[in-house]
Amino acid sequence: MRAYLFATTLLASSVMAAPPAIRSPGEIVAAAPASAWQEISPENMLVMELAGGGRVVIELAPGFAPVHIANIRALVRDGWFDGGAIVRVQDNYVVQWAGRDEKRPMPAGVSVPAPAEYDRPLAGMKVQPIDSPDPYAATAGFVDGWPVGSDGKQVWLAHCYSMVGVGRDMPPDTGSGAELYAVIGQAPRHLDRNIALVGRIVEGMERLSPLPRGTGDLGFYTDPGQRVAIQRIRDAADMPPAERPRLQVMRTDSPAFTDYLSARANRRDAFFVRPAGGVDLCNAPVPVRSTP
Amino acid sequence: MRAYLFATTLLASSVMAAPPAIRSPGEIVAAAPASAWQEISPENMLVMELAGGGRVVIELAPGFAPVHIANIRALVRDGWFDGGAIVRVQDNYVVQWAGRDEKRPMPAGVSVPAPAEYDRPLAGMKVQPIDSPDPYAATAGFVDGWPVGSDGKQVWLAHCYSMVGVGRDMPPDTGSGAELYAVIGQAPRHLDRNIALVGRIVEGMERLSPLPRGTGDLGFYTDPGQRVAIQRIRDAADMPPAERPRLQVMRTDSPAFTDYLSARANRRDAFFVRPAGGVDLCNAPVPVRSTP
Repeated sequence: MRAYLFATTLLASSVMAAPPAIRSPGEIVAAAPASAWQEISPENMLVMELAGGGRVVIELAPGFAPVHIANIRALVRDGWFDGGAIVRVQDNYVVQWAGRDEKRPMPAGVSVPAPAEYDRPLAGMKVQPIDSPDPYAATAGFVDGWPVGSDGKQVWLAHCYSMVGVGRDMPPDTGSGAELYAVIGQAPRHLDRNIALVGRIVEGMERLSPLPRGTGDLGFYTDPGQRVAIQRIRDAADMPPAERPRLQVMRTDSPAFTDYLSARANRRDAFFVRPAGGVDLCNAPVPVRSTP
Repeated sequence: MRAYLFATTLLASSVMAAPPAIRSPGEIVAAAPASAWQEISPENMLVMELAGGGRVVIELAPGFAPVHIANIRALVRDGWFDGGAIVRVQDNYVVQWAGRDEKRPMPAGVSVPAPAEYDRPLAGMKVQPIDSPDPYAATAGFVDGWPVGSDGKQVWLAHCYSMVGVGRDMPPDTGSGAELYAVIGQAPRHLDRNIALVGRIVEGMERLSPLPRGTGDLGFYTDPGQRVAIQRIRDAADMPPAERPRLQVMRTDSPAFTDYLSARANRRDAFFVRPAGGVDLCNAPVPVRSTP
């Protein structure tokens, strides 16, 4: 079937004005022009170095949770996470990390309690809708490169794979930013509007998602010896320019992203026999690449 | 807030006919009566033993892909997977395993090519709907304990976390059962009706999902030394009774499961400040427990 499909496409394009070749989502991403990509600014990146080696890069979303993100920046600048650890890995749910001493006083500039920044007014923002029904929101789509839900009045970040949020205790305003988690399984969208999301992992998910699952309640490691140590977390803007990650996110208002969404919803590349006709918000991850 | 909520509930139940206590999905599962549970028959379980130790149990869904499952049973009986390996781990996608020698002749009883058992007629089956919109199917819900989609004529298994499918090449009828995969990330529902699903992992997902991600195309291990060896896969019915796993799946037509679905869609337990009002098919995993 693969050979047949390719042969047909080549023949058609050589002899007539044929329908455009069927492109896979990956081919659309690879062919997207420079104008479809946006550089992530160093100010919006944190770089986590695991003690065993390996870099994890977090892109922040200051438009959505500015107080929490100001907290996280102050904590990072103070070295809060340096010598910290991954303390929890719950299968099909989250990886969570903390500073080296949760009883240590917070540095200046950290607001505790922080307001419950779970959503923000939609006014003035444009959601690029995904055009498929969503179980969790009247409208699902993208704003400035981020997956979101909206009820027509408010808009909020969605708990898709790789999104980063702020751990908290029972009261909604207890999440300071001193413990963070990343989603590693099926999107736990029931957490949307219940926890502050602050960004996403844009490099190094494959260093977090395979960590051993904790055997304590909620996947916490019961033996501190199981923890994976964090050497340090730095603000990319504070790193020497040559060391900073250079990454780009696809613009979700670009024609290439519209094509990508359409291809994700209607897979017609060679492997597929029946396109779905729809796509889940979290099954259309926004493409990220190294800056060429 | 937790203290306040608990105090209110206790007070109310002690002095008046109060609204029922708010129960979390986990509490509903823990309190479900024996009648809400169905024992998995040994005939429908495969037991994989990893070479490094550790058991993974697969429940088969013979109602949905009978020819593929007959193939898998014949392969297992022949020892096809014994000495095989995990050959592919693609982050946020699948873990895939194969027999020790893909060029070895298939044993008798294996149909190659197998028919494309991607869906089956809905007639005579009752779907318990999930009552939330689904991006991939007109109706999403459960049949006999399995997550499914339906278009009103056909019904098919859904690619939720932990579901097991049959790897194939480009032509739709090339999946024999000699290579199998399990879903380890966001549900790749675009594969629904494009690959035969044959069951799900009911024990031991936490042994598969943390395996190192492969660095080759599609997450295949490029160095055979990276592979995780499979000691053997057995049909539970062929095991001594004392060694067989004893597991139960919640009946999806039970009142307890209806309560569980409702609680998953409307989290009102203490942590939550805003219930979603909906739930994704793959974010309501069918509960499994050890037989008490």
